[in-house]
Amino acid sequence: MYVVKSPLPDADLKTVAEALQGALVDLVDLSLVAKQVHWNVIGPRFRSIHLQLDDVVDTARLHSDTVAERAATLGVSPDGRAVTVANTSGIGETAAGWIQDKDAVGMLVTALGAVISRMRERVGSTADADPVSQDIFIGITADLEKHHWMFQAENG
Amino acid sequence: MYVVKSPLPDADLKTVAEALQGALVDLVDLSLVAKQVHWNVIGPRFRSIHLQLDDVVDTARLHSDTVAERAATLGVSPDGRAVTVANTSGIGETAAGWIQDKDAVGMLVTALGAVISRMRERVGSTADADPVSQDIFIGITADLEKHHWMFQAENG
Amino acid sequence: MYVVKSPLPDADLKTVAEALQGALVDLVDLSLVAKQVHWNVIGPRFRSIHLQLDDVVDTARLHSDTVAERAATLGVSPDGRAVTVANTSGIGETAAGWIQDKDAVGMLVTALGAVISRMRERVGSTADADPVSQDIFIGITADLEKHHWMFQAENG
Amino acid sequence: MYVVKSPLPDADLKTVAEALQGALVDLVDLSLVAKQVHWNVIGPRFRSIHLQLDDVVDTARLHSDTVAERAATLGVSPDGRAVTVANTSGIGETAAGWIQDKDAVGMLVTALGAVISRMRERVGSTADADPVSQDIFIGITADLEKHHWMFQAENG
Amino acid sequence: MYVVKSPLPDADLKTVAEALQGALVDLVDLSLVAKQVHWNVIGPRFRSIHLQLDDVVDTARLHSDTVAERAATLGVSPDGRAVTVANTSGIGETAAGWIQDKDAVGMLVTALGAVISRMRERVGSTADADPVSQDIFIGITADLEKHHWMFQAENG
Amino acid sequence: MYVVKSPLPDADLKTVAEALQGALVDLVDLSLVAKQVHWNVIGPRFRSIHLQLDDVVDTARLHSDTVAERAATLGVSPDGRAVTVANTSGIGETAAGWIQDKDAVGMLVTALGAVISRMRERVGSTADADPVSQDIFIGITADLEKHHWMFQAENG
Amino acid sequence: MYVVKSPLPDADLKTVAEALQGALVDLVDLSLVAKQVHWNVIGPRFRSIHLQLDDVVDTARLHSDTVAERAATLGVSPDGRAVTVANTSGIGETAAGWIQDKDAVGMLVTALGAVISRMRERVGSTADADPVSQDIFIGITADLEKHHWMFQAENG
Amino acid sequence: MYVVKSPLPDADLKTVAEALQGALVDLVDLSLVAKQVHWNVIGPRFRSIHLQLDDVVDTARLHSDTVAERAATLGVSPDGRAVTVANTSGIGETAAGWIQDKDAVGMLVTALGAVISRMRERVGSTADADPVSQDIFIGITADLEKHHWMFQAENG
Amino acid sequence: MYVVKSPLPDADLKTVAEALQGALVDLVDLSLVAKQVHWNVIGPRFRSIHLQLDDVVDTARLHSDTVAERAATLGVSPDGRAVTVANTSGIGETAAGWIQDKDAVGMLVTALGAVISRMRERVGSTADADPVSQDIFIGITADLEKHHWMFQAENG
Amino acid sequence: MYVVKSPLPDADLKTVAEALQGALVDLVDLSLVAKQVHWNVIGPRFRSIHLQLDDVVDTARLHSDTVAERAATLGVSPDGRAVTVANTSGIGETAAGWIQDKDAVGMLVTALGAVISRMRERVGSTADADPVSQDIFIGITADLEKHHWMFQAENG
Amino acid sequence: MYVVKSPLPDADLKTVAEALQGALVDLVDLSLVAKQVHWNVIGPRFRSIHLQLDDVVDTARLHSDTVAERAATLGVSPDGRAVTVANTSGIGETAAGWIQDKDAVGMLVTALGAVISRMRERVGSTADADPVSQDIFIGITADLEKHHWMFQAENG
Amino acid sequence: MYVVKSPLPDADLKTVAEALQGALVDLVDLSLVAKQVHWNVIGPRFRSIHLQLDDVVDTARLHSDTVAERAATLGVSPDGRAVTVANTSGIGETAAGWIQDKDAVGMLVTALGAVISRMRERVGSTADADPVSQDIFIGITADLEKHHWMFQAENG
Repeated sequence: MYVVKSPLPDADLKTVAEALQGALVDLVDLSLVAKQVHWNVIGPRFRSIHLQLDDVVDTARLHSDTVAERAATLGVSPDGRAVTVANTSGIGETAAGWIQDKDAVGMLVTALGAVISRMRERVGSTADADPVSQDIFIGITADLEKHHWMFQAENG
Repeated sequence: MYVVKSPLPDADLKTVAEALQGALVDLVDLSLVAKQVHWNVIGPRFRSIHLQLDDVVDTARLHSDTVAERAATLGVSPDGRAVTVANTSGIGETAAGWIQDKDAVGMLVTALGAVISRMRERVGSTADADPVSQDIFIGITADLEKHHWMFQAENG
Repeated sequence: MYVVKSPLPDADLKTVAEALQGALVDLVDLSLVAKQVHWNVIGPRFRSIHLQLDDVVDTARLHSDTVAERAATLGVSPDGRAVTVANTSGIGETAAGWIQDKDAVGMLVTALGAVISRMRERVGSTADADPVSQDIFIGITADLEKHHWMFQAENG
Repeated sequence: MYVVKSPLPDADLKTVAEALQGALVDLVDLSLVAKQVHWNVIGPRFRSIHLQLDDVVDTARLHSDTVAERAATLGVSPDGRAVTVANTSGIGETAAGWIQDKDAVGMLVTALGAVISRMRERVGSTADADPVSQDIFIGITADLEKHHWMFQAENG
Repeated sequence: MYVVKSPLPDADLKTVAEALQGALVDLVDLSLVAKQVHWNVIGPRFRSIHLQLDDVVDTARLHSDTVAERAATLGVSPDGRAVTVANTSGIGETAAGWIQDKDAVGMLVTALGAVISRMRERVGSTADADPVSQDIFIGITADLEKHHWMFQAENG
Repeated sequence: MYVVKSPLPDADLKTVAEALQGALVDLVDLSLVAKQVHWNVIGPRFRSIHLQLDDVVDTARLHSDTVAERAATLGVSPDGRAVTVANTSGIGETAAGWIQDKDAVGMLVTALGAVISRMRERVGSTADADPVSQDIFIGITADLEKHHWMFQAENG
Repeated sequence: MYVVKSPLPDADLKTVAEALQGALVDLVDLSLVAKQVHWNVIGPRFRSIHLQLDDVVDTARLHSDTVAERAATLGVSPDGRAVTVANTSGIGETAAGWIQDKDAVGMLVTALGAVISRMRERVGSTADADPVSQDIFIGITADLEKHHWMFQAENG
Repeated sequence: MYVVKSPLPDADLKTVAEALQGALVDLVDLSLVAKQVHWNVIGPRFRSIHLQLDDVVDTARLHSDTVAERAATLGVSPDGRAVTVANTSGIGETAAGWIQDKDAVGMLVTALGAVISRMRERVGSTADADPVSQDIFIGITADLEKHHWMFQAENG
Repeated sequence: MYVVKSPLPDADLKTVAEALQGALVDLVDLSLVAKQVHWNVIGPRFRSIHLQLDDVVDTARLHSDTVAERAATLGVSPDGRAVTVANTSGIGETAAGWIQDKDAVGMLVTALGAVISRMRERVGSTADADPVSQDIFIGITADLEKHHWMFQAENG
Repeated sequence: MYVVKSPLPDADLKTVAEALQGALVDLVDLSLVAKQVHWNVIGPRFRSIHLQLDDVVDTARLHSDTVAERAATLGVSPDGRAVTVANTSGIGETAAGWIQDKDAVGMLVTALGAVISRMRERVGSTADADPVSQDIFIGITADLEKHHWMFQAENG
Repeated sequence: MYVVKSPLPDADLKTVAEALQGALVDLVDLSLVAKQVHWNVIGPRFRSIHLQLDDVVDTARLHSDTVAERAATLGVSPDGRAVTVANTSGIGETAAGWIQDKDAVGMLVTALGAVISRMRERVGSTADADPVSQDIFIGITADLEKHHWMFQAENG
Repeated sequence: MYVVKSPLPDADLKTVAEALQGALVDLVDLSLVAKQVHWNVIGPRFRSIHLQLDDVVDTARLHSDTVAERAATLGVSPDGRAVTVANTSGIGETAAGWIQDKDAVGMLVTALGAVISRMRERVGSTADADPVSQDIFIGITADLEKHHWMFQAENG
């Protein structure tokens, strides 16, 4: 059977593996939610938000790939299947149908807030276990918080 | 309430809307399945298949965006949320865990085959209802069948 | 005298020639109208609409070139002169002067709607006469309807 | 009502506004005439002239945008609509139908000559009124005269 | 033995396979003929035609690859070998030796005319059998007819 | 001691040197003010204005470099230090803290208006003294007035 | 009133906010000082130092934007106005006038040394308060220290 | 009749002309053979060989153009027509139908070996007759031998 | 004598200097080993591994430059000479001669494993001494571990 | 005989023609002198001056083309032949042989000074005769004076 | 005094130095002659020849730089001054004034022929003395002969 | 066992193999020496030499790859391991520690001189044995001698 020799002791690996799998699911879902809003937003600010959401999608896709491959690097099989995402994402339910621009901004503020809050926990939990993974979480958090600021500012 | 004045009569719109929504779900799921295999494939052909799968992901992401925006263009709200994908995708269940390279090829042959078969039905069903949408389905089918050939050839 | 040997029988050629000439005029006028609004729009959404209109201009210029050269390809001299555009365009009169952003969106919804409606007729009328020209009209319709959706969504 | 505070006194503004509006119409028409010939030229020199005309189109489109936005910058609503172009352009009537290559060169020599002559007047009339607009007219004249030389040289 | 499961029933497959193989041979030969003339053309219009022919070569190479891979996609082995091209091309014999520029244009008008005429038949014959392949033939025909126009116009 | 042999007589040099030093300070301050608003703007139009302000920053940085190097070219040491900018800029005080989007637009209209007005004076004062420097001021004025128009139009 | 919900507790936020504001001022001033020397340097090494200084300007501008937007992200209004820079920068006074090349190198060694020393304190003070901001300070320190080495090496 | 004044004496010209014509035919055929295998290869190494073959095609197309134009440069009409290639190529017959990956590698080893062996003879025969043509053959041989090594290494 | 004023106290500097010098040697050797295998690998997987090894070379060269310049930045002279690499590298002896593809993968798994293990120690040892250098080691470790995963996966 | 209809009256044309012809010769010679020094410079500052001189060559070549084509545009045949340059250039004799770096800088200061002084006269003499040509001379003067500053600064 | 230690014995160096200096003068003059014709050509083929001549200019400039730097590399001071070019070029006198297109082609055939003939002698004379310089002459000859063919073909 | 069928007879192969292996070692060592100086150089000319050395590194890396792959192409296993480079390089010992700029130039003059001298011998020894390899050595010599000139000129 295929086994990568992990550079981490078992307890640390377990901690880091959970953090990476959680981040993977959150980021894949964020990419799907942002696309959903990208397609369904309406209202005077349509174009601006439509474009802004693709920036979020780019960020989410880039980092989901990074965390999944980091998991594989540590010998942990990543799981980014639709069912897994649907069942374990940290982002709450997204309503179907058209979304007024103001509501779209609010939905992103909420979704990003949820993902950031879990990502900050991962920064903390992996600090001792694996500084390499922690550094990845720090970079992701920086990017997500920047998006978070922009959507909050639009509510200002 | 927001209403796009659809250029199609109601019956045609219903046919095309179902085709577009079905294609959206299939393509989003294809992008997730291809990424899942991209991360979990192992074996001597790892690198080649790993790269090949990102070509599939690119195709699936590009076309999922096209069909979702085509639905919106016709006044139909597209639904590409994780739950919807998990529940209505035409691709069968994907097993978790590491995937031997030979099995990875087989999984893609099966997944692409399932999506293509449904896409060809959509080409047929939308021919009269909306030649613009049909043309999109034809283009998607061409791209998917080309990927299908390549994975089949690797089994040759 | 210069005569291209047309690949089409005379009756088909007449049908296709009229469709192409009509499309040429509509598209040239669309590019002029979109530029007119690009320069004259005012209001809080100025910058977003100003940029969006250049996307419409790009689409209109690209496709006007395609249909004019398609006409020449079939041995039919295309006519995109200002007088011809002014006299035969399918887009109604555009008022002079500054245009409030909300009105700008409405003007584009109307102008695009008019052009799309005629373009869809061309898709139908050329299906048997010349599938090559029809395919061009289908592609143009897809692009115009996408722009149409975006301006409609901004009214949502 | 929307009013840009013009940096120019009224008399100067009137002079400059007329110059800019006239240039806008001439340049839009030049772009349409050059495209018309681009599509309809025939003869052994077809390809060379066909390409050369797109260089003229690029120049005319670029500068028509500049002068229209300069007008708006000075608080003057620019008018580049097809009807306005058809009625007020400084370029004489362009015949419909195929154009022999030699005639195509002659048509451009004439059309460019007409526009240049008016543009040189604008350089003079705006020198005191607005050196910023004058500098734009000088740059346009330089580009048009260079095109003019090339077509004349082809008649040499 | 290697077998692609074709998405088409046998009778349709036979029709489409013949069309694709025929197109492959015609397009490979067109690329060779265009290069032959590219190297052997002489006369005052040498440079213009020399460059124009490389545009034809690009078109022919691009589409020959597309139709060959489309055949493979449908489970049909494509044959683009020199012997096959020499024996089954739809383009008549090309004389050896230097070619006067005027004759070069005439040769391309003839060669393109022959290929287009067969390509239009393929558009018709595959319409029901495989709309995906038909769409490819339509796109090829559009490109070839555009080249055809340009060479004809040079004879105008 | 280092002395560039200036191409201008002393009186002219003094005039031009003052104009260049004044322009340098105004443009450096404009770049700082535009960045300040870029970071502090809030409200529904946040994203559009945030991006628009970076266009102003690019313009201001580009031209501040040009005028500073023009001064050095004439043998005059340019001074763009923070203290000098703080003390001699033509732009009035900018308040600290968050800025509502509507106010952000107003602040730029005011700041650009102040810089433009002084720049137009420089166009006048340097006309005889140094047409090379004057030409630089004319180009800067054109760019600043174009930004000015856009922010004014957003207030329309 | 506009309030971003900061992800940090108040005490941490205060620490981080001070560090970010201090870094912003230092970096804006560094960009102004480096430009000042870029314009005023003279001597045989003019060209090399002139170019090297623009690398410093690029670094300083890039990171000043990052820290300002990081402050906004945490709900803290950044202040990069000329007056604030002039009054609170960690870089000592820069003399006006031409700068001999050897002195220019010395000035940059001193200026970079001052900024680096404060930046290292920020790395320490924010380690517990906000690892995301700390990571930004670490990256900035790495870049500044590399520039510092290069100028020091030129004094070697 | 058209005659290029060849820089070579007649005997040398005959030698070089034969070498160039032979190389042209070999290289055109190599491009066709490599494409044939590119389309028909099957087996686990499909993707890698499929891509590798397009590198061979690029090399063969590039150099066939060079030798054909070198012949024309020396006043010798090059002949790269399908019939000529089919009758005089130095590459043996290529079987029709699907090709197992291992066999594909073997076919390229053989085809490249045949072309290289003839090309080395041309390097020798043209050394005195025309060092310019010899230098071209040396460069071609270097490229072909590098491809040869790679396919041989895959058989290792 | 040339002395960079190091930002670190002597004890910390000694720790960091040793870590950087060790990393420099390991990375230079990794680039040489990867090139050695790049040139000598044989077997069916030749092309894939040949390309993959150049990715490793790029990583090793990039990071060797970074750590050498970081050492210089801290006032420590880096030593990357062949003799030093030969004598102090952490990678074991590499056998001369051709390398079967399977063995090539194994050699890289071993070499990367050795370097990673030492690099992780450097992450630990420099955490307190110099977080800037530590951050560099963390980034290097992330990249090397990703390469390690891929070669291990190929053994799966 | 070929005659461009000049847009200028005869007296003005004579003035402008002389200015353009003089500028052409000066700029061609400047490009040759700068290349001569580029090849022959020696000394510790070799590399910096060698690169700097190619910037001068680029400027001189670009503007020599502009003024020559401007002359042709006005119906005046430009003369940039070696003999004409050798006999009428405004740049004094350049000594043959190696050039010490310090002397190289001095030679450029002198050469640029000579060209600039004549170019400023042309700015004056063409102001009334042809503002389009004057604007070209102003732009050239700006570029040359910038180069002049840089070489002078290196003597500082 | 500055002396490069030449890798060649004195007699060989003398031979090679003369060849390089001769080539430098021929190539600089070719670039001037080609530009002269580029500006003065008239007639129906103006545009094609105008563009073709800039290709010659690019070739001549590129290779003149190569041979001048090769001379410097061998310790020989290159001389590309206008006077030297005017006095020692292998290209005969070029008449002033407008040049009919047919004559322009003839002038280039003659000029290229003269340079090529001397360049071929240099290929011969340097074969033993310095194969590195010879290889440069071979490459230059190849490029010039290709241009020569094209202009000759236009006379065909 | 893996054997490439070499195109050369055994005696020639031995000669060429030794030349290629020797060149490989020299070039790898040159890249390491140049990097060593790139990192350790100090003094006023630091930046210029630092950049110049990376040009040498690029040349050395590019050509070391070429000669190693040429050896493999001829069936000879290349050896570029650190131990082999340390033991057999033609470049003398490089001292550790900081290097004054003047000394850095001297070191490169010496190192390049040593490698060039051996490379010229290889040009001679392989002329008959393998003109393809000889042509590679000629090209390498040309590049190295150009670098050699530049460093020598800096000592002038």
